[in-house]
Amino acid sequence: MPRFRATALGDLAARLGRPLEGDAAWVVRGVASLEDAGPGDLVFVRGPRYAGALARSGAGAAIAPPSVDTGGRPAIRSPRPDLDFARAVAQLALRDRPPAGVHPAAVVAPDAHVDPSACIDAYAVIGARCSVGARSIVHPHVVLYPDVKIGADCEIHAGCVLREETELGDRVVLHSGAAIGADGFGYTFDEQGRPAKIPQIGRVVIEDDAEIGALAAIDRATLGTTRIRRNAKIDDLCVVAHNCDVGENVILVGQSGLAGSTVVEAGAILMGQTGTTGHLRIGAGAFLGGRTAVHKDVPAGARLFGAPAMPERAWHRTMSALARLPDALRRLRAVERAVGIRAPRAGEEEA
Amino acid sequence: MPRFRATALGDLAARLGRPLEGDAAWVVRGVASLEDAGPGDLVFVRGPRYAGALARSGAGAAIAPPSVDTGGRPAIRSPRPDLDFARAVAQLALRDRPPAGVHPAAVVAPDAHVDPSACIDAYAVIGARCSVGARSIVHPHVVLYPDVKIGADCEIHAGCVLREETELGDRVVLHSGAAIGADGFGYTFDEQGRPAKIPQIGRVVIEDDAEIGALAAIDRATLGTTRIRRNAKIDDLCVVAHNCDVGENVILVGQSGLAGSTVVEAGAILMGQTGTTGHLRIGAGAFLGGRTAVHKDVPAGARLFGAPAMPERAWHRTMSALARLPDALRRLRAVERAVGIRAPRAGEEEA
Amino acid sequence: MPRFRATALGDLAARLGRPLEGDAAWVVRGVASLEDAGPGDLVFVRGPRYAGALARSGAGAAIAPPSVDTGGRPAIRSPRPDLDFARAVAQLALRDRPPAGVHPAAVVAPDAHVDPSACIDAYAVIGARCSVGARSIVHPHVVLYPDVKIGADCEIHAGCVLREETELGDRVVLHSGAAIGADGFGYTFDEQGRPAKIPQIGRVVIEDDAEIGALAAIDRATLGTTRIRRNAKIDDLCVVAHNCDVGENVILVGQSGLAGSTVVEAGAILMGQTGTTGHLRIGAGAFLGGRTAVHKDVPAGARLFGAPAMPERAWHRTMSALARLPDALRRLRAVERAVGIRAPRAGEEEA
Repeated sequence: MPRFRATALGDLAARLGRPLEGDAAWVVRGVASLEDAGPGDLVFVRGPRYAGALARSGAGAAIAPPSVDTGGRPAIRSPRPDLDFARAVAQLALRDRPPAGVHPAAVVAPDAHVDPSACIDAYAVIGARCSVGARSIVHPHVVLYPDVKIGADCEIHAGCVLREETELGDRVVLHSGAAIGADGFGYTFDEQGRPAKIPQIGRVVIEDDAEIGALAAIDRATLGTTRIRRNAKIDDLCVVAHNCDVGENVILVGQSGLAGSTVVEAGAILMGQTGTTGHLRIGAGAFLGGRTAVHKDVPAGARLFGAPAMPERAWHRTMSALARLPDALRRLRAVERAVGIRAPRAGEEEA
Repeated sequence: MPRFRATALGDLAARLGRPLEGDAAWVVRGVASLEDAGPGDLVFVRGPRYAGALARSGAGAAIAPPSVDTGGRPAIRSPRPDLDFARAVAQLALRDRPPAGVHPAAVVAPDAHVDPSACIDAYAVIGARCSVGARSIVHPHVVLYPDVKIGADCEIHAGCVLREETELGDRVVLHSGAAIGADGFGYTFDEQGRPAKIPQIGRVVIEDDAEIGALAAIDRATLGTTRIRRNAKIDDLCVVAHNCDVGENVILVGQSGLAGSTVVEAGAILMGQTGTTGHLRIGAGAFLGGRTAVHKDVPAGARLFGAPAMPERAWHRTMSALARLPDALRRLRAVERAVGIRAPRAGEEEA
Repeated sequence: MPRFRATALGDLAARLGRPLEGDAAWVVRGVASLEDAGPGDLVFVRGPRYAGALARSGAGAAIAPPSVDTGGRPAIRSPRPDLDFARAVAQLALRDRPPAGVHPAAVVAPDAHVDPSACIDAYAVIGARCSVGARSIVHPHVVLYPDVKIGADCEIHAGCVLREETELGDRVVLHSGAAIGADGFGYTFDEQGRPAKIPQIGRVVIEDDAEIGALAAIDRATLGTTRIRRNAKIDDLCVVAHNCDVGENVILVGQSGLAGSTVVEAGAILMGQTGTTGHLRIGAGAFLGGRTAVHKDVPAGARLFGAPAMPERAWHRTMSALARLPDALRRLRAVERAVGIRAPRAGEEEA
């Protein structure tokens, strides 16, 4: 079970900058979902819809909008209970933080620079000329190839590999097993028509506050830079190919893939298992539904679905029409009969 | 080549509990496919359809149903030759088992508990308060974050990472590079519309006999538990997001993805590259064909295909109708002409 | 920034076997894209279309077809500028090569054979009876299970796991985190209908010059061999299931998956996120567009798109027709009215 820093509700409300209702001295001992909460737990409710669930919950306190009756429980009042709950959890949850310093079973190149407040954990490998910034945590079994730069307050989980010259800003999080800076998939064909490798000598830059999921691959550029911009969020098992530019605040959900040189502008959201062909641009704030496949540029703010992608309304109409298609073919044949057009025989109609 | 424990066919038949036909002293020296088998090899045939292949095979003995003539070869008679062959291979195949104990190049926290019969291999990292049960094998380069519990007779292959509080039952197998318990992909949006992380403080529980493929990711819950139930089988590069509940005996084939809070009930089969949107339920025994995309609850026992998913028969009819659609549009125009409806000009018909 | 071996342009031209135009003593100090190039950089242009970009570029020299005016810059003339540029970069780019020998923090089984010119880097684990050929580089944190054979001039990037009996030819490259030889996903059902494991005791062979992307999984065969043939190129996060046979020069682009026993013949190209069902054959030189799903054998040279896959022309016609389907249904209803067929009411037409 996760462990928490016992905190007076009044102190928490003050830190969140939200008004408190009820006993300020009430002590938060944990957080939980409405279903699982016990008397020492803080929960949140989004709105009146959840008032019944709160009434039935064992929770001792709630973050809730002013409109929700908390049944006498002390409450932090918030117009954005989900956001304040996320902030509260970040304050309350205790995590084992490995101690600062270099674990004796780690290999650090003599010309690497590791900030004394950083942690390099067991069996990590820090290559030549690397740098690791203040308070960053490099978990066990992380490999930094030469010339990797890591900023301050980053967390690199176990098993990540960062190839040569990868550069991370501050507060970047890489989850277990992410592969950063592996060669892009670049080939041409030789005179005999065989695939011939195009050397991949560019690099990857991941800017401040970006987060990369477990087992995701962000490939180095062929020449130049593959860039993940500030606060972009990339989920597990996504692939970002060489020379992509993923904009600020972009959300790329699980198992999505961006082909080479795709530009995703700020704030776009690509749901799970989406894919793009290369050299195209997804406009700012665009939304691609799950499993969408994009073959051409997407205008800013567009909402697309399907493969090939269509605007949302057209996609809904088309999928609805598709479900009626077998019946429509029968109706078409009936009309042909009514007007004396010989119905095509099986096999004829494709001719 | 794999190595085998030379075994008298009679002994093997006895262990499988099946009747023997022919020489009980015949020695099985290996197992092979019908094409590759040599005179010391045991093969299996599913039924009469494969009798010709068996006749041509160099195999020395067979597991076969009573109806199949084995051409004088000694035979173990079985109503389920594939299942008995699988059991026979499990008995016969020899594997290098690393010796019990902790490799000198491994880091085990002083307050971790490792059963003396377990193996902790080179460069494994066993975090604070972890436990590893009897006869379990932790291969090289596995990282257990603090508070991980591993039951008996588990095998954790090289490169797996198990985040804090992950709990494994008995006989669980994790293949190379699986990422268990990484943060779920949970974000809300802050007052400026930027993605803001929801801390992921839940955990993953994987019950007895479950098996997780190479490079699969099973994310920890936001709050509470992501659960993989008894004997569930998850293939390579699948993603199971936060708070999912994968039922007993479920089969999840390669590169499939379950979005957050998906419930998959017992015995459902999801073929390769399927996907689900979050917060839905796949009923017991349902079957989703390869590449199916599910957007709503699936009834128990349903068979769905396609994206968006349709019942099997509707999908076959719809895909067949779709192939005839270009021709149907021509036929529609002909009918319009016949009844004096002006055929729409190019570009008009979408209006 | 990548580093380069300063080289006289005349020497480079001679090594490429191409005619030089201009100053043979001009020194190449780097390579770059047209946009990023500076005065010491060599670039390439594919043809006259890029002449304007070259004119605006800061590049000092170019590899270009004879038809392109390089504005007085010294030039290597080539009918295949992209291919010669790739070869030039391979000659010019400097890489940190870890020194030959076994790192003191590596575990090598006493009966393994490592060529003295090979490099076994920190925390690598080389199992019993393995062999590593001349000049091959085994990066940190690679694990070779027992009986793995690696040829000459291979490069195995950090975090790769090679299970028992995997065999690599010469010049094979495995990118970060690739999982080679993990168990195939083979189950049958026991008498109670539960998934029962079929032991996977085959192996993986990867032939000369093949390249496997980051976090890709190539599963061992159930019995026999999963084979990746000479010069095949497999991208990040692809899955090749048990008993597949991937032909020479095949290209398998990111996140594609081959189900068990798929045969891909020489020179086929499978674009990103494609999938195949098992036991089928993709003919030589076939092309499958991105996200294609194949359910039956593909003839040699075919070009397929879509899910389920269709020939290219049929797919384009069908997708175009699909976009017109909602309108066609309205037109169909109008025709029905015109001929006095009662238009079906909502809900009726599916009956």
